[in-house]
Amino acid sequence: MISVSEAADRTNAAVREALNSVSGLGGMTSHLSGAMGKGLRTLVFLSAAADGESRVPENAVKAAVAVELLHMATLVHDDIIDGAATRRGIETVQSKFGARDAVICGDYLLCMSLSMITEAYSAQNDGNGNTGVTNNTLVPTVARFSKALGDICRGEYAQNLNGGNVDLGVYSYLKIISGKTAALFYISACAGAILGGENEENAHAVGRFGHYLGLAFQILDDCKDYELTEAEALKPVGKDIAGGVVTLPLILAMQKKPALRGLAKEAVRYGREIPKLIEAVCRAGGTEESRRIARRYAQKAESMLRGINERKRRNLTDVLERALASL
Amino acid sequence: MISVSEAADRTNAAVREALNSVSGLGGMTSHLSGAMGKGLRTLVFLSAAADGESRVPENAVKAAVAVELLHMATLVHDDIIDGAATRRGIETVQSKFGARDAVICGDYLLCMSLSMITEAYSAQNDGNGNTGVTNNTLVPTVARFSKALGDICRGEYAQNLNGGNVDLGVYSYLKIISGKTAALFYISACAGAILGGENEENAHAVGRFGHYLGLAFQILDDCKDYELTEAEALKPVGKDIAGGVVTLPLILAMQKKPALRGLAKEAVRYGREIPKLIEAVCRAGGTEESRRIARRYAQKAESMLRGINERKRRNLTDVLERALASL
Repeated sequence: MISVSEAADRTNAAVREALNSVSGLGGMTSHLSGAMGKGLRTLVFLSAAADGESRVPENAVKAAVAVELLHMATLVHDDIIDGAATRRGIETVQSKFGARDAVICGDYLLCMSLSMITEAYSAQNDGNGNTGVTNNTLVPTVARFSKALGDICRGEYAQNLNGGNVDLGVYSYLKIISGKTAALFYISACAGAILGGENEENAHAVGRFGHYLGLAFQILDDCKDYELTEAEALKPVGKDIAGGVVTLPLILAMQKKPALRGLAKEAVRYGREIPKLIEAVCRAGGTEESRRIARRYAQKAESMLRGINERKRRNLTDVLERALASL
Repeated sequence: MISVSEAADRTNAAVREALNSVSGLGGMTSHLSGAMGKGLRTLVFLSAAADGESRVPENAVKAAVAVELLHMATLVHDDIIDGAATRRGIETVQSKFGARDAVICGDYLLCMSLSMITEAYSAQNDGNGNTGVTNNTLVPTVARFSKALGDICRGEYAQNLNGGNVDLGVYSYLKIISGKTAALFYISACAGAILGGENEENAHAVGRFGHYLGLAFQILDDCKDYELTEAEALKPVGKDIAGGVVTLPLILAMQKKPALRGLAKEAVRYGREIPKLIEAVCRAGGTEESRRIARRYAQKAESMLRGINERKRRNLTDVLERALASL
């Protein structure tokens, strides 16, 4: 058993090592190791897996690596879908290596992830992380991973489908982010709880915590598109708007000021007047109201943890606050 | 236990059902069910799994479905990479739904495949196909699936990298097709043998059979680009050339007639004079010599089966012949 913070450090190092060890793909994955993100899903996973003394089994590291690699795979493919040029302050794989090779890179990360998750859960009962020990958590965990990836696909598809749709409603928006973001937080939390030995009911509750954390997180992230300068956001502000992606701040601003619809159309469909729209959405209270809703989801996330033991609840709540504060 | 032919029929029906049951992806997977291919990998898998009476356990169907879905996932992504308009006589997903959605569609098929393989192998010892029974073949099988997908990625990447490269050598060509085609035949054969209860050594030998079958198959398929009419090939002839993909018939033709190099450059780099190149390659014996090499790989495939029992060897040899005759 090792501490959560040591496991997080080891996960970070192991992800970097995994990315740098891939041969035959022209350095695409090593490029990604230059911008590894905040490791929030790792922290959610490890905190959900931790025992009463905030320690996790050693094979939790391998499972956390799988979670991060799955996340990276979806980002690489997501950037193709969005035609994004930068992410986390570095050039995207699709921009640097081309969309065709980025498809391959994402597939490769996906298969690395699935192979690691299988190894981690098959070795669950063996404290040394040796494979070969089988138990009945592997199959339901892989089934959940698979479902999460399916949800992510559906979310991305629905987002594409609604490109430029200024009539997107709050409910449809929530459905999209439930897939594209919250599903991965769900699986991080739920799979962590399973690895940590929680029963099905508790693991699902911890998973729901992850789900609501994911919703809050994505809503706050969507606010950034309307609030931050480019340097602060590490990606171009107004990128969602320019990409035709309608998010909560805009939806709520248009609810308050229906007259904004014309300007919104110009911006999300033709990329015109984006700075003007950003200002109008903020002035109409779109981001403020979105932040309020995000806070409500954060509270809902916490309320899912009622049946979970005190120490784990505190740790997960800490992670929740850290995740939302990071935005 | 059921017969191989019944299992093949059930697999076909189950793949179709799986593709048609996907919701939330706008019918992308149902579209694929309109052109399901010859199910060669299914036959390789099932024949490798069969016992002395040509019967397989019922869960072999689920595993075979996983193999076909993995194959389809790679085709959908492959078509993005190649910018292909048609495959198996129908429009490709990337052409009909756009490259962005095709990325998602391939990811979705991939996750369906991995979830099914996990279920199939976790239920291996339970003749009824119920999940929950674990054994130690699941982890090595998923590891092999993952490795196969990694090899496919590397093969595709190398093919991209060598787009328009008329200096591609025979060895590099073989490395590319080892990844992009033979890896999937390897895993079909090897995973089948494992499911059928073969030991590691035999499973690897059967896998090598699949590998060489895959090489022979791809070489013959590459010959089609130089030989068939569009209607016969169910895809545009000269497509590889137009896509800048250099294959064995061209490599061998240029070895025999170095003067072809100029014409080859025109065709693979700029898409000019393709019919002229096709004729010249055939006249130089490029396809004939390629077919000779394919036959040699087919013999090598058969020789891998020396240690395998008579009935299975005969069944696998039948599949080999059927696969190569289908081209």
